[in-house]
Amino acid sequence: MEYFKNIGKIKFEGESSNNPLAFKYYDPEKIVSGKPMKEHLRFAMSYWHTLTGEGSDPFGTGTMERPWNELSGLEKSKLRADIGFELMEKLGVEYFCFHDLDIAPEGDSLKEKNKNLDEMVAYIEGLMEKTGIKCLWGTTNAFTHKRFVHGASTSPNADVFAYAAAQVKKAMEVTQKLGGENYVFWGGREGYETLLNTNTELELDNLGRFLQMAVDYKEKIGFTGQLLIEPKPKEPTKHQYDFDTSTVIGFLRKYNLQDHYKLNIEANHATLAMHTFEHELNMARINGMLGSIDANQGDLLLGWDTDQFPTNIYDAVLAMIEVLRNGGIAPGGLNFDSKVRRGSFEMDDLFYAYIAGMDTFAKGLLIADQIVSDGKFDKLMKERYSSYESGIGAKIVSGEVGFEELAEYAQELGEIKNTSGRQELLENILNQYIYK
Amino acid sequence: MEYFKNIGKIKFEGESSNNPLAFKYYDPEKIVSGKPMKEHLRFAMSYWHTLTGEGSDPFGTGTMERPWNELSGLEKSKLRADIGFELMEKLGVEYFCFHDLDIAPEGDSLKEKNKNLDEMVAYIEGLMEKTGIKCLWGTTNAFTHKRFVHGASTSPNADVFAYAAAQVKKAMEVTQKLGGENYVFWGGREGYETLLNTNTELELDNLGRFLQMAVDYKEKIGFTGQLLIEPKPKEPTKHQYDFDTSTVIGFLRKYNLQDHYKLNIEANHATLAMHTFEHELNMARINGMLGSIDANQGDLLLGWDTDQFPTNIYDAVLAMIEVLRNGGIAPGGLNFDSKVRRGSFEMDDLFYAYIAGMDTFAKGLLIADQIVSDGKFDKLMKERYSSYESGIGAKIVSGEVGFEELAEYAQELGEIKNTSGRQELLENILNQYIYK
Amino acid sequence: MEYFKNIGKIKFEGESSNNPLAFKYYDPEKIVSGKPMKEHLRFAMSYWHTLTGEGSDPFGTGTMERPWNELSGLEKSKLRADIGFELMEKLGVEYFCFHDLDIAPEGDSLKEKNKNLDEMVAYIEGLMEKTGIKCLWGTTNAFTHKRFVHGASTSPNADVFAYAAAQVKKAMEVTQKLGGENYVFWGGREGYETLLNTNTELELDNLGRFLQMAVDYKEKIGFTGQLLIEPKPKEPTKHQYDFDTSTVIGFLRKYNLQDHYKLNIEANHATLAMHTFEHELNMARINGMLGSIDANQGDLLLGWDTDQFPTNIYDAVLAMIEVLRNGGIAPGGLNFDSKVRRGSFEMDDLFYAYIAGMDTFAKGLLIADQIVSDGKFDKLMKERYSSYESGIGAKIVSGEVGFEELAEYAQELGEIKNTSGRQELLENILNQYIYK
Amino acid sequence: MEYFKNIGKIKFEGESSNNPLAFKYYDPEKIVSGKPMKEHLRFAMSYWHTLTGEGSDPFGTGTMERPWNELSGLEKSKLRADIGFELMEKLGVEYFCFHDLDIAPEGDSLKEKNKNLDEMVAYIEGLMEKTGIKCLWGTTNAFTHKRFVHGASTSPNADVFAYAAAQVKKAMEVTQKLGGENYVFWGGREGYETLLNTNTELELDNLGRFLQMAVDYKEKIGFTGQLLIEPKPKEPTKHQYDFDTSTVIGFLRKYNLQDHYKLNIEANHATLAMHTFEHELNMARINGMLGSIDANQGDLLLGWDTDQFPTNIYDAVLAMIEVLRNGGIAPGGLNFDSKVRRGSFEMDDLFYAYIAGMDTFAKGLLIADQIVSDGKFDKLMKERYSSYESGIGAKIVSGEVGFEELAEYAQELGEIKNTSGRQELLENILNQYIYK
Repeated sequence: MEYFKNIGKIKFEGESSNNPLAFKYYDPEKIVSGKPMKEHLRFAMSYWHTLTGEGSDPFGTGTMERPWNELSGLEKSKLRADIGFELMEKLGVEYFCFHDLDIAPEGDSLKEKNKNLDEMVAYIEGLMEKTGIKCLWGTTNAFTHKRFVHGASTSPNADVFAYAAAQVKKAMEVTQKLGGENYVFWGGREGYETLLNTNTELELDNLGRFLQMAVDYKEKIGFTGQLLIEPKPKEPTKHQYDFDTSTVIGFLRKYNLQDHYKLNIEANHATLAMHTFEHELNMARINGMLGSIDANQGDLLLGWDTDQFPTNIYDAVLAMIEVLRNGGIAPGGLNFDSKVRRGSFEMDDLFYAYIAGMDTFAKGLLIADQIVSDGKFDKLMKERYSSYESGIGAKIVSGEVGFEELAEYAQELGEIKNTSGRQELLENILNQYIYK
Repeated sequence: MEYFKNIGKIKFEGESSNNPLAFKYYDPEKIVSGKPMKEHLRFAMSYWHTLTGEGSDPFGTGTMERPWNELSGLEKSKLRADIGFELMEKLGVEYFCFHDLDIAPEGDSLKEKNKNLDEMVAYIEGLMEKTGIKCLWGTTNAFTHKRFVHGASTSPNADVFAYAAAQVKKAMEVTQKLGGENYVFWGGREGYETLLNTNTELELDNLGRFLQMAVDYKEKIGFTGQLLIEPKPKEPTKHQYDFDTSTVIGFLRKYNLQDHYKLNIEANHATLAMHTFEHELNMARINGMLGSIDANQGDLLLGWDTDQFPTNIYDAVLAMIEVLRNGGIAPGGLNFDSKVRRGSFEMDDLFYAYIAGMDTFAKGLLIADQIVSDGKFDKLMKERYSSYESGIGAKIVSGEVGFEELAEYAQELGEIKNTSGRQELLENILNQYIYK
Repeated sequence: MEYFKNIGKIKFEGESSNNPLAFKYYDPEKIVSGKPMKEHLRFAMSYWHTLTGEGSDPFGTGTMERPWNELSGLEKSKLRADIGFELMEKLGVEYFCFHDLDIAPEGDSLKEKNKNLDEMVAYIEGLMEKTGIKCLWGTTNAFTHKRFVHGASTSPNADVFAYAAAQVKKAMEVTQKLGGENYVFWGGREGYETLLNTNTELELDNLGRFLQMAVDYKEKIGFTGQLLIEPKPKEPTKHQYDFDTSTVIGFLRKYNLQDHYKLNIEANHATLAMHTFEHELNMARINGMLGSIDANQGDLLLGWDTDQFPTNIYDAVLAMIEVLRNGGIAPGGLNFDSKVRRGSFEMDDLFYAYIAGMDTFAKGLLIADQIVSDGKFDKLMKERYSSYESGIGAKIVSGEVGFEELAEYAQELGEIKNTSGRQELLENILNQYIYK
Repeated sequence: MEYFKNIGKIKFEGESSNNPLAFKYYDPEKIVSGKPMKEHLRFAMSYWHTLTGEGSDPFGTGTMERPWNELSGLEKSKLRADIGFELMEKLGVEYFCFHDLDIAPEGDSLKEKNKNLDEMVAYIEGLMEKTGIKCLWGTTNAFTHKRFVHGASTSPNADVFAYAAAQVKKAMEVTQKLGGENYVFWGGREGYETLLNTNTELELDNLGRFLQMAVDYKEKIGFTGQLLIEPKPKEPTKHQYDFDTSTVIGFLRKYNLQDHYKLNIEANHATLAMHTFEHELNMARINGMLGSIDANQGDLLLGWDTDQFPTNIYDAVLAMIEVLRNGGIAPGGLNFDSKVRRGSFEMDDLFYAYIAGMDTFAKGLLIADQIVSDGKFDKLMKERYSSYESGIGAKIVSGEVGFEELAEYAQELGEIKNTSGRQELLENILNQYIYK
């Protein structure tokens, strides 16, 4: 049964098109730097924001006009799945990401929850087979239910830790069954509200233990997907332990987990941590830990996670430069962890929003590819650091000299000559790449 | 020669005193939890904010009325030192902290700079001997001069790296000579303005190399002080590499430097990184890396480093709880990295400001000690986490169970019962400790 | 029927009490500066946060353990009212504040909504009579329902404007019936998400029209309560028109409404607008527009409205100084627009939280009164501005001189002598008032 | 004497040019919507950031390599002026803006200051005559000198008020002499550090008095330029009285100055006040008070005024839409209140930076013009608000109905039907305008 009867497959029509239901830049099979755009971008639909989000906010109830609102239980879950796969198919989005609780109702007990999950997994497998759509990653929702009020693996209550473990175990199995290429940990309530009642040391150790158990279980069941941690600095808790990329990398090193996990970087979480999106991608990349991307955007003048569809071309270009320099993002992808605004409550807005996000990143890829292949920025960069390629610089890099040799060298230097960083020129060149 | 002729030694007069030039809480020899207050607090004067700061800001020139403004060169440096030691002596501040450039004029070359330094070090040694005042820590200023425009050890220019190395070498020697108990690294311009021209990977590796050289040189000269890194997230650069405590700890682990460095935590840098002061202290403490403290306060509604004298009692209490739980702060101390407001330009304001800061931390210590020795909060904390002391919780902590055992256990759980976190009650109890 | 069987009337036991269910500072009948504490403070319970809030947040469902959760419809509303009045009576909170939708279920139509309201108003009148508790203010909730998705009086849809008008009309009548001393307008969704689709000029004019209609209707029905506008800068919308005190005052002047409205200042809204709480109170006061207060506190490191119970003594003291200088807050009051943390989900937490808030403001009043009656700060202030009391300053104030006379005068001035602002000393004196 | 010997007049070469010293979009004589680009944009050089800024920041001294650094006194001022006019001429910037202290040395007394000013004004008149370059606006610097430590017209010291009056009087005369089309007030230190020592009421009244005196003096000397106030929320003071556009408009209404002043809106000041640039322009425009623009950009992840050259095309497009809807910006203009980064210290960077800013706004104008003349957004806007053009909406607007009529009308409404705000679609359409 087709839901969007008036909307067919979204086609690439090129930048002169005025059709709001066409791509102007996203041309999935177009070869860019040796592979099709779609393989660079590996777009995924977020099940939650797209299919279960209702448009509520702290000051208002749901606004979304959704056909499944009339239904309940598994019936509701199935209609959601049907329409979700129709949406992905028409958009040409080849992956989806999900929490266990997105796809099936929770039920009254862990058993019932798991039974519901199994039924929906089978149903979704059918849709995947029919459409060829794949699972980018699965995860578990261990933050919405009140049992997680004080955390999941960092709860002061060991029963909650156990429950969360059971939930991740099942979600990982489900992800494996659906062929998920990654499994994500976002520490929804892994953090604290006040230090007055928090034993951070035990909580962090427990988080480390939990993640080690996940590694063990992954090996046990032979799940071959990549494990990912998604940093976020605050919200819902006052302080989230996985604050940002550097914090997470340090944490992984402390608990000797650095070879088992990579990072899933979200644009809006980056800015909530006072970093640019490209900064977080860059930090992950240079540490060999860039795993996947949650593509959205925040509003830098607001202090919460707005999860807007990404339409800022600067962010997309700078992100795709990092992806290209990373040699691609696979087995990760670009998951639209983005929701239509509460005022964009009509079903068609889902198309408009995904098209906006996909075209922004497609254009971003095209520009980034041009920048990387032109090599203009690279050349400037190489020149800027050329003093480390010979002479005293090379000796610094190779470890041949220490403070004494350097002090002797410095003694003989006259006034040191630096060169301009040329930031304004570089920003202007970037603009030219964007407009052209 | 006495400068502050009308101000004698600042005495402890108790809380009923209305004398603005007396301590109401700081009673240096009073025994608190087994040792004198002054040994808990180890107050230090910051040479820069107290003696070289002029009260300029990005929109205005200096306002400070200082007797040395009339002088120049070494004469100026000496009068500063004289008055600074008189101030410390009268306040009963037993330590000072300094940058190389605070105590001596820079001169026209590295040689002249070092010569000036040597002369002033000898002069200051005399004052130390006379007064019994000690050096808490030394550091180098590798950020003010234009040669550091693009960084010091992270400069794209290897000559600058070498120059900075020479400077740290000398500053470490000077610190050793003055008996400094610590040596601090604050990465003034170790960061970037834009990723468009920055090779973060090389810059961070160079920072690691630099810090390793410092360890090597420290061992070579037998300097026994503690090495410290001071995190700050931004300002002057858009992104400072030593963003916050967790970032620095992760960095140290990556470069295998974690056994050689601890942290110097500054209150205002904590809040610029969107953390509370106590959070940063806590993170350092539970990682065994709490080394020293820069006691000041920021204005959370402003986005830059205001370095105000600390007068907020909440911050002082929560900080001192962390210090007590750390078993003290020595060989670190509480350095007032604080400056009088631009509008507090009279010499007497230095006394008022130091008294305000010292009394705030003295009162903070008294309250923190009461909280820790009462054990009321500790008891609540212990109860809150008691589920990890037996049963399934103990097995989690000891590593006896994994996802499978936990899933089996969780299967049998009914509705999980949590208990309230009682934040409002705890905040109210904290208030009672403060008022009483 | 008594709900809190184990909790009796909360008594004042003084600061040496360790009873968590007693006041240490709030002594309602104690005379402070000529009138009882309770008349200075005029505490009110917020119906919504206390009785209808469920502890949900954007990432989680409700956690609050509330006896009325089992019920629905009017029965639920009545149990809420019963327990709410028992809570107020036991706490000695003599006022409450409400939205129409807090006290009665919405129903399927405006008619049913109004019928439900009428029934609950009668019920509440009974409780008021029985307990002597009064209504501080009423308001309408014109933001939760999806019809207000694009605003209420600033909606692009005239039907929504009409609906909101009907709702305010009824809510004002109900407030009048309950003897409400004020009626509040908080522009929940009066703002915009993006200028790309917003006609700010029409929307602001409509807001002006709406507020004029409210004035007209108030006069028509003879409602004698004070009309109040509550500023907030953002959340839920990206930009709320009633951004802050100064914006609202300017708006009122533009639409010639300045004689009909005062302001209801909320602490957390102040800080979201990057102002201190006392700044907003001060701006309202010096414009003769300080009407009432929403007493809560935000977390300055978080970017959303946390509405915490106020426990920061600095904020309370500085707020109460403004209230005392305003000659009191009546007919307004101190409404605890505060919610227990999501983790404080037990019923007893309501007591702990209100006691914390009430004691904080009681202590704040005591300190503020001491500060104001001592006159130490006032005297410093008077001296600081004394140059405007005679000579050229007096002529400036009286309007006797212009640029020419001033330029002549300035020509003859030598170096101008300023005096220190003494900020650190003043902060230290404030601390002494707090500790003692 | 030509300074930039290797740089000729910057030419428009079109978007295919790779010449960093050419315009790709700014084609001054090109007709856009009936008038030349240059008349739409009215670009101005800021004398301070371009010619007197040294590249210092709170942590470092100057870096700028400037030929006048060797000189001092009037000689220095003259070389600055020569090179500044050469720069403007080569860039085709037809206006400049200045503070009194930018163009002439301060001297030891008000008399000497004024004498220096007179000499430099004469010199600059010569350059203006030679080049045809005009003065967009003048202002006075009443914030850098220590006498303004506590404010200028809001100083607690009446002598400072008088001095500032003398300074503005002279600066206004100088601006008149140079044919300045506007005179700007930026309240550098008109604000406060702490309410503990501040009488806001007197200070604001004095600010009102000062601005009335300026109006009176303007009339007296027949200065026909437009008077402008420039809002900024904080920095250097904790709270600046002219916080944002709405605050300033409200202030002007209170002191009955609204017919005498318009606003000079700065992008970076907008974002420091948590507003978008376009918001501030919009608020000024719909109040008939959009006077002029300080074109720069801030870094939204930093909390201080970075005053970067504007290169963000989104900001430029949305700003130019407001300008076009305002019917143009004359007699105001687009003043680049922008400084090259501290690391962009070579003279050539001035060209690169101005070209970047000018091309960004030129491109912004072209896109804005296309958007406005296409009318696509306008049409959507008109439809969105069409309910106010007839029926109940028209009656609301015309004032024919009040709460009673609206309540009756609302009674008969069924479920109200809203339409989507289409934010994502609109953002995508905006992107297409930008790329094409």
